[in-house]
Amino acid sequence: MSKIEVCLTPALLDLYPIENSIVVVIDILRATSSITYGIENGAEAIIPVMNVEDCLAYADQGYLLAAERNGEVVAGYDFGNSPFSYTAEKVAGKTIVLTTTNGTKAMHLAQERAYQVVVGSFLNLSAVCDYLKKENKDVLLLCAGWKDNFNLEDTLFAGAVVEQLQGDFTVGDDSSVAALDMYQLAKGDLRGYLQKSSHNHRLIKLNIEEDVRFCLKIDVCKAIPVLQGEMLVALA
Amino acid sequence: MSKIEVCLTPALLDLYPIENSIVVVIDILRATSSITYGIENGAEAIIPVMNVEDCLAYADQGYLLAAERNGEVVAGYDFGNSPFSYTAEKVAGKTIVLTTTNGTKAMHLAQERAYQVVVGSFLNLSAVCDYLKKENKDVLLLCAGWKDNFNLEDTLFAGAVVEQLQGDFTVGDDSSVAALDMYQLAKGDLRGYLQKSSHNHRLIKLNIEEDVRFCLKIDVCKAIPVLQGEMLVALA
Repeated sequence: MSKIEVCLTPALLDLYPIENSIVVVIDILRATSSITYGIENGAEAIIPVMNVEDCLAYADQGYLLAAERNGEVVAGYDFGNSPFSYTAEKVAGKTIVLTTTNGTKAMHLAQERAYQVVVGSFLNLSAVCDYLKKENKDVLLLCAGWKDNFNLEDTLFAGAVVEQLQGDFTVGDDSSVAALDMYQLAKGDLRGYLQKSSHNHRLIKLNIEEDVRFCLKIDVCKAIPVLQGEMLVALA
Repeated sequence: MSKIEVCLTPALLDLYPIENSIVVVIDILRATSSITYGIENGAEAIIPVMNVEDCLAYADQGYLLAAERNGEVVAGYDFGNSPFSYTAEKVAGKTIVLTTTNGTKAMHLAQERAYQVVVGSFLNLSAVCDYLKKENKDVLLLCAGWKDNFNLEDTLFAGAVVEQLQGDFTVGDDSSVAALDMYQLAKGDLRGYLQKSSHNHRLIKLNIEEDVRFCLKIDVCKAIPVLQGEMLVALA
């Protein structure tokens, strides 16, 4: 039986052998949610980069540039990290360069060793789980976390995946058990549960309540973004 | 208001500024439980070391040497890591050198920067909490974990401390929230909850069920071991 494990932060990734694993990168607020929504809505590709400055390398290539700092769209860029910027009207057929510190770091670290790197979010939860069941390879759920540390929202999503896969996979580590229990405790009211998060005051300050609520919607997308080279594209 | 945070593994310790914090090192199965019990029972000092080989440096000093590998007392050593080796009859007035990989690493890492390093276990839960309330400094609960990764039993203890301190301290990070919720889910039957642990088969194999049950007893000790130099002694 294949195994499912949960890596709570990118700082712990070295502890996991992932050479034959599918790694699901999770950065619920908001990178992997926006990426999922963008690919669902027909974006040709999304290129995740670490910094606003890295975006500049892609200027003049006809790409949309999404750069945000402290919750504000950076002057001269097309839009920020809100999933509402990734509607079909805005992104269909386009390639987008997206700054996301935690998510990009997690994706690049995983890509160095993993069999495959895909993107998960509540928006495509069941699509991702169905794919993982079909592939039947070992799975590592990689929480992007917050500045290399644990966070609640990414762990909750990992727990949601464990809940769907536990019958078909061996639950391999203690963090999977914890993530599952936390999800089952929180799932009746995910937004309410996240009120307890240390980030909650940050989210309120950024005035992104609508974004947060959208990022917690389950199964509104079927697309699974997969990392190919530096680009995230729709899984064929 | 002082702050309480939970560091889920020693691999994440660098993320926490602890220069003015009391760090509580947690290695429930079995190092910090045995240490607590030994100090409670009158051991003069306990010296934690990483490896069986490190114990050798203390041979011929009249110390008791506790060394265990794969669950067996190493030939030529006085006893292993079972808390039942730390009775008054065996340890009163003695200094013990104890091998414990995860716990020693956590203590040494914390000692480099922390204001103070103390040892916590279910055995001295309320004594530790009362001390932390009295001191009213920032607190970091440092889970020794398992080979640098997350484990359930250390996190549950961290949650038990957060439960007692939450009215008097600011709960500072998402891992504190998670630890508290897990503890509240598990506290009715801690041993039953740990059946879900990935280590459970290891514990069964080691035939240390009695040790595990003892390590989950709450408040049977009043002693608080504190790290002074290389030695753990009773907090004055």
